[in-house]
Formats: sequence, structure tokens, C-alpha cells
Amino acid sequence: MKHIDPEDALNALVELVADDLLACNRAIVARMDSPVELIPQLAAHIVAAGGKRLRPLLTLAAARMCGYSGLRHVNLAACVEFIHTATLLHDDVVDESLLRRGLASANAVFGNKASVLVGDFLFARAFQLMVEDGSLRVLEILSRAAATIAEGEVLQLVTQNDLSTTEERYLDVIKGKTAALFAAACQVGAVVAARPDAEEVALAEYGMNLGIAFQLVDDALDYSADQATLGKTVGDDFREGKITLPVLAAYAAGDEDERSFWRRTVETSEQVADDLDHAMLLIVRRNAIQATLDRAATFAAAAKASLEVFPDSAYRRALRSVADYTVCRAR
Amino acid sequence: MKHIDPEDALNALVELVADDLLACNRAIVARMDSPVELIPQLAAHIVAAGGKRLRPLLTLAAARMCGYSGLRHVNLAACVEFIHTATLLHDDVVDESLLRRGLASANAVFGNKASVLVGDFLFARAFQLMVEDGSLRVLEILSRAAATIAEGEVLQLVTQNDLSTTEERYLDVIKGKTAALFAAACQVGAVVAARPDAEEVALAEYGMNLGIAFQLVDDALDYSADQATLGKTVGDDFREGKITLPVLAAYAAGDEDERSFWRRTVETSEQVADDLDHAMLLIVRRNAIQATLDRAATFAAAAKASLEVFPDSAYRRALRSVADYTVCRAR
Repeated sequence: MKHIDPEDALNALVELVADDLLACNRAIVARMDSPVELIPQLAAHIVAAGGKRLRPLLTLAAARMCGYSGLRHVNLAACVEFIHTATLLHDDVVDESLLRRGLASANAVFGNKASVLVGDFLFARAFQLMVEDGSLRVLEILSRAAATIAEGEVLQLVTQNDLSTTEERYLDVIKGKTAALFAAACQVGAVVAARPDAEEVALAEYGMNLGIAFQLVDDALDYSADQATLGKTVGDDFREGKITLPVLAAYAAGDEDERSFWRRTVETSEQVADDLDHAMLLIVRRNAIQATLDRAATFAAAAKASLEVFPDSAYRRALRSVADYTVCRAR
Repeated sequence: MKHIDPEDALNALVELVADDLLACNRAIVARMDSPVELIPQLAAHIVAAGGKRLRPLLTLAAARMCGYSGLRHVNLAACVEFIHTATLLHDDVVDESLLRRGLASANAVFGNKASVLVGDFLFARAFQLMVEDGSLRVLEILSRAAATIAEGEVLQLVTQNDLSTTEERYLDVIKGKTAALFAAACQVGAVVAARPDAEEVALAEYGMNLGIAFQLVDDALDYSADQATLGKTVGDDFREGKITLPVLAAYAAGDEDERSFWRRTVETSEQVADDLDHAMLLIVRRNAIQATLDRAATFAAAAKASLEVFPDSAYRRALRSVADYTVCRAR
């Protein structure tokens, strides 16, 4: 694959739906409001303070690619971002994270209690927005996605510290916790455009494959020395004993000494100062980052193939580029 | 008011909708299932292990009082219980409670992480059930209630440890965190029966007033020596610095020594061994339990009055008795 600047790949999409994205950001700010002031304060900390808006961008672009000319997709893209934000707030509580997107996490600033409750509020507000939109089909897709996300997160909890987790089960986790919302975000684009089932399915498959690729790359980056050089956090998954493909691949390929290291650090969580460095060394030695990125590239290719049912357009090209972006941001 | 055995008052309602309640309990168990086994395990701990099913009972009885003869209300009653259960799971995490209904709370047994995530699952599942039902009006009512619950809970967090909280603001908290779901549970009964707006409004008002009365009594019981005698937990609100009417009334009526006691224990949370006993003594001295129960009785009477638009029936009598039950359980 030729080198693509990841920022360029995403920017093409952002430029293409620039007006829709502005409208979506306005809807996000307007609809996270509440007479209970702590809610917009805390929500602003996480919703308004950054993030790439990747999931709402998918809804916006998918709808336009399907020829939709109305504005319903704007509020539905905001719904998707609210559901995502709610899960981030709850994830940070669950992971006891102190950082999110390089800033202090909401739970670190406002406390766990407020983060749980504002997550609940955003989740409920997302459903209110969907009800205003009035499509039971959209409600069906996004309520199923919300349930699947929670199932994926619980499954992740169950597999934590368990090196006997199979790759299949790991894929179930990331399909649930990440890819289900990508799939729903894309599918909704076809629904508002009233496209036939085959196009709904194609967009859902695109989003599912894209989401899996995205999470695989995320999981690889968590052990990437390059990320450490860039000043980004690495090793969160390692410290939490999360079972991800880099660890499973390094463990499977490791000798007895290496396996014993992984058992101590990941299964029993007995970690000392240099363990993360050693883990990263073993992961490089066993080619486990590359193995993970190769898997991601396969899913990204599948995502692009899912778009073949649509005629060529600037939107389709941009969505194909997003698949490249997902993989290239790791290089 | 004449003495009514609280159990009798609730039992009349339970007997009247016995078949519906059985069907609702079956729906609850069937629909909290998931291939991720920890979800039904944890949910069973809280959903199946007790509780009076008061909220779903309200939906069932309201629908029947409105002449509804179908079965949609059964699944919608299960939705109401799922939303309630999700908020209980999140509440216990927020409050760091170790007990729920006299048993170890889910967070104490399964951990905070699983409780947050299974709460999210039940919430999403509730919306899936509503989507299956297919009424946008029901979805509107229950998604608004869900947002209002979260607002009430956040407002409670904001008023915690703050003795300058007004009684009006305290009422806003309990309307949100408790009464909004009672109101929605009742209103949904009129919706499935396709009754005119006036009856929807009347049932929503009944539920709102009932819910306020219910929470006022709960807040009184948390300082009740009788409860302590019965082996039930008292003093949770006190220990958490929650601002409830018994405290506000005792603080308002207290002398300078008493106010200084409340400021130390509730505002700065500096509590020592005998403080709860002393708080209960001051609350009795200032007649604050009685003042709270009197307020509850007023709301219970308003709840009963809201039912006047409906013709007399066994269901209406049972719903009136529930209002009595709410108040009598404190006596």
C-alpha cells in the first residue's frame, strides 16, 4: 500500500461534508444543554473539547453518498456522537482513566459519579433526538447498537487478564465495543436516504469492517514506541490487563520465558517499573504489532470492497480514504 | 387518615393484575438475556432477586383501568422496570452502596465496572423493547423520562452537602430522580389504550404526585428509629451528605448549636460515631419526620385526586390504595 498522509485522508471527508459537520456540531452543543448546569459543563469538557467526530462524519457522508438531500442526517449524526460520548464517559469510569484525548478525563475533573450520570443523560438525549426524527428503523438500528456496545464492553471485562482468550473472542469484543457503532452510524445514512436493503447492508458492512480495523490499529498503537516518541500515552491496555491482539500474538509466538512474563504481568497484574518496556520489546520481537496491523489492513480492504455497490462519487472516494486513514495513522 | 396495612394496599393491586405481572416477570427474565453470560447473571442479581415491581405494576394497572385489553402493556412494563433497574445499578455505583434491598448490591458482588456496563445494557434493551412495540409516543415519553431521571440525579449530586438548598430545589431532585419514571410508567398505560390526552395527563399527574410522595417517605424512613428497630438500614443519606426534607426541616427549625451540628456533619462530612443518633434525635425534636410525612400525605392526596377523571373501577380503587400504601408504609 502506498503511503498516504492520514490527516489528508480524513480532511478530504471533512471538507466534503463541511457544512453538514458545522450543523452537526451546532446540534451537539444545542442538544447537550440542560437546566442542570453541570451537565453541559461536563459534556462540553468531552464533547466540545475535541475528537475527530469520525462517527458522525460517517453518517453525514453515507447519507450524502446515498443521494440524500435533506437535513435529518445532521441530528442523527449528533445522536451517534452522543452515544459514543456516553460510552467514553462510562469507559473512563470503568477503566479509572485519568486522561482522555491528552486532557484530564471527565471523571478526573468532575468525579466518577457525575461522569456516570452525564453519560446516562447523553444516552437518553440521543434517544430523544431519534424520537424527534421519527424513524423506527433508525431507532431499531441505534438501540441494537447500544445494546451490542454494552455487551462488547462486558465481554472485554470478562476476558480481562485471561490469556486463554481466543482471537475470535477478542474480535467479538471489538466488534461490540467499537465496530457496532461504526456500522450503525453508516447504515443510518442509507436509511434516511430510503435506499434499498442491499445498500443498507453494504454500508453496515463497510462500517463494521472499518470499525474493526480502527480498533485493531488502536490496540497496536497502545504498544507502539513511535507513539511514545510522539508523547502519546502507551501501555494503558497493558497496565489494565486488557487482552488485545498484540498481546495474544506475542504470547502465542513466545517461548516459555516470554509466556511466563505475560502470565505474571497480564494475568496476575503484578507489574514492576520496566515491564512495559519489556512487553514492547517482546511484541516487536514476535512481530506482533505488524501482525495486528496486517489484520487491520485486511479489514480496511474489506470495508472498501463493501462500497463497490455504490457508483463512484466524491463521497465514495472519501469513505474509501477513511479506510486508508484508519490503517495509515499507525505508520 | 385511618390505618391501612401497607401490604394489603399493595396486594390488592398485585392480585388485580396477577396474570399481567406474571407475564411481565417472564418478559423481564427473557429479555435481560445475552450471550455474554455475566449480563443475565448480574441482572438476575438485581432484577429477579426481589423488589416490589411497583413501577411496572403501575403501567399494568393504568392500562387496564383505561380499558386496554391487549398485551402491549406487558413488555412496556418490563421496559419501565429495566430503566428503573439500570438507574439502581448506576446509583449504587454513584453512592458506593454495599447493600440493596437488604442484600449485597451488584457493585459489591460484581464490581463497579460490570454494574455500570450492565446498567447501560438494560437501558439499551429497554429501548429495543419499545422499538419492537412500535409506538413513537411511548418512546417519546420514556426517553424524556430517562433524560429527566439523569438530570435529577445530577442535580442531587450538585445539592449534596449544601444546606442552602431550597425545598423547591429538593423537590426538583425527587421529581427527576424518582417521580418522572412513576409519571411515565402511568402515562404509558393511557397511551396503549389510545385514551384522549386528558386521561394521559391525569395518569401522568397521578404518577408524578405518587412518585414525589413515595420519595418523601423514603427520605423520612432513612432517619426513622422504627426502621432501625426493624433491622433496615438507616442513615445512608446522612452519611452521604444527601440533602433531604427531614434535614432541611430540622436545620431550618434548629437553634445555633443544632445548625452548627448539621453544618459539620452534612456540609463538611466530618462525622463521628454517635452523630447519626444525634441527627435522628434532632430530627424528632424538630418534628421533621412528621413534617416530611405530612408533605407526602399531601402529594398522595393529590395523586388520588388526579384519578377523578376516571370512572370508578377495581383498578382505580387499587391505584388509590397505592397512594395510601406509599404513605402508610412509614407508620
